[in-house]
Amino acid sequence: MPENLDCGIPYTLIFPDINLKDKKVLIQLPDGLKQFSLVIANCIRERYNAEPIIHMENIYGACDLQYNQIFSILNPDIIIHIGHSEYPNYLSPSSLPDNIRNRVVFVKALSKIDVDEALVLRALEILNNYNVKNISIALTAQHTHLYNKISNIILDKKYNIIESKALYPYYEPGQIIGCDFRPVLDKKIDGYIFLGGGEFHPLGLYLATLKPIAQIDLYSNSVRDFTPIGTKYYKKRLFSISKAIEANHWGVIIGLKTGQYRPSILNIIIKMLSKKQYVLLSSENINEINLRSVDNDWYDAFIITSCPRIPIDDLIDYEKPVLSPGEAYMALTGKIDKYMFPW
Amino acid sequence: MPENLDCGIPYTLIFPDINLKDKKVLIQLPDGLKQFSLVIANCIRERYNAEPIIHMENIYGACDLQYNQIFSILNPDIIIHIGHSEYPNYLSPSSLPDNIRNRVVFVKALSKIDVDEALVLRALEILNNYNVKNISIALTAQHTHLYNKISNIILDKKYNIIESKALYPYYEPGQIIGCDFRPVLDKKIDGYIFLGGGEFHPLGLYLATLKPIAQIDLYSNSVRDFTPIGTKYYKKRLFSISKAIEANHWGVIIGLKTGQYRPSILNIIIKMLSKKQYVLLSSENINEINLRSVDNDWYDAFIITSCPRIPIDDLIDYEKPVLSPGEAYMALTGKIDKYMFPW
Repeated sequence: MPENLDCGIPYTLIFPDINLKDKKVLIQLPDGLKQFSLVIANCIRERYNAEPIIHMENIYGACDLQYNQIFSILNPDIIIHIGHSEYPNYLSPSSLPDNIRNRVVFVKALSKIDVDEALVLRALEILNNYNVKNISIALTAQHTHLYNKISNIILDKKYNIIESKALYPYYEPGQIIGCDFRPVLDKKIDGYIFLGGGEFHPLGLYLATLKPIAQIDLYSNSVRDFTPIGTKYYKKRLFSISKAIEANHWGVIIGLKTGQYRPSILNIIIKMLSKKQYVLLSSENINEINLRSVDNDWYDAFIITSCPRIPIDDLIDYEKPVLSPGEAYMALTGKIDKYMFPW
Repeated sequence: MPENLDCGIPYTLIFPDINLKDKKVLIQLPDGLKQFSLVIANCIRERYNAEPIIHMENIYGACDLQYNQIFSILNPDIIIHIGHSEYPNYLSPSSLPDNIRNRVVFVKALSKIDVDEALVLRALEILNNYNVKNISIALTAQHTHLYNKISNIILDKKYNIIESKALYPYYEPGQIIGCDFRPVLDKKIDGYIFLGGGEFHPLGLYLATLKPIAQIDLYSNSVRDFTPIGTKYYKKRLFSISKAIEANHWGVIIGLKTGQYRPSILNIIIKMLSKKQYVLLSSENINEINLRSVDNDWYDAFIITSCPRIPIDDLIDYEKPVLSPGEAYMALTGKIDKYMFPW
């Protein structure tokens, strides 16, 4: 039986049915939950008599389990990965091999903050400005248990709900992650109510759909129209793509994070570059500092073949175009009428 | 036969006798050489008909080969590691297992800049102020071929040279790396002529010896007395150690970089903490951002059990003491009369 663990933090941790007794466990947390890392470690130690190690490294998702180095060096019995759901194997073949999968526990962290009806009504007002009738609900992992409550409020107000597609076993209804929006992609959808904080998830949802988004942020107890923010980023991306159309010399960056290696996409990109010149680059971490360290006059543009969020979230202001594979496809084929994201 | 490769850059690359023909090779470079990465990749492609991938990630030494992720994901035939000599196996058992060792080529990169006699004479003047008679020559990897020339100039001026200890096959005479100074440690030495740029290597040499150092920097064609810089850092370290003497709650950070895992040192530290409280933390990359993400009021001080340079070079200004294992030994035993570095 799954077990709900209340460690006295603003999240309920849902442990699957697995024996952790006396185990050496390595605890991975998203940055937003690391402030509770010590409390969670002590809580796991007391409940399961397990021996915890807190993983301090930035973990950007379930695509970033870092299991090679962790098992090679520390060899814990179990990695307890909190706050991200399992990464879909259709996104990367190297995401989670079977022999690793049975040593990783994915623990849901559900926020204890409830959603107030007034926030949903304000979100509906925003969508009303865009004449939205058919609504989809999108949520980040820590709010998925609020799907039904929000759905009922919307239905009460005579809007249509386009139901989320179940993608068992990876996602709860309506759940999105930064690079996968399939549960809430449907031509019938006019707009979204998105539940979650920050810009990261709603920006991805906007770029994947280009549809109106009303964002409810329970941490700041606020509602905003995310559409103009998304539009601003979208225009910046189109500008980068248009600059890259003339590029002849490309740097193709292969990301080495566990679940971000996508050889089929890499091969497509390399085939498309047959009439250009390109150099292969590799890195587990990809950022402005290490890109700049290898960049020189020869390079006109870069493609990051791993995480499609890195060009958009981390390198959007780099002085040369740094594109995701879908964006590179647009630049290399000249087909810039349809924005391709994520890819 | 080893082969000297001149790629038209200010360094001569010395390849050992290994067949690279038609091989898929991943090229690793220290940050200072990455500006030449494209030239070097093309040069290797032309000379050996090899298929190069340029590794873009920051590589901080031969302790940081990142081979687990590279072979697991990209699986190149060979890693060509340029500019650092092989990491001694006495420093870390996980440095380079045999099955990895035969897929890694260490390529020396020797700077083409010669040393002018006048620079050595100015360095001798600096050491003369400290009444140094018995001199040791310390050099970074890219200048080791200048050892004999400097030695002859010094001998001409009637100083004594304390000869470097050969530590075959890891080091050339006089060579130091950031965490290992054994070739130039000897009680008979009064002071050092150090050849190399920056603060990183001479600071390590100073902290390991507390002896006068005259630094010759061929890149800026300058000579300086490094001793007061070293002294300033040394005093800051003693201050951190003295603050940590009263610490009861410790974070013990286990570094996961390939050659930086030192289980014997970790075990010693854990035994010494038996009367304190401690939590185990792990990370491949250790920096202010991820340390701060897990830090809270509970922690009084931290020990980094992997690279002894991280507390000194990257976290010296952190508001709580962050100590190397040797420094932690001083704080936990109260034996602060003898500075322990590196450990």
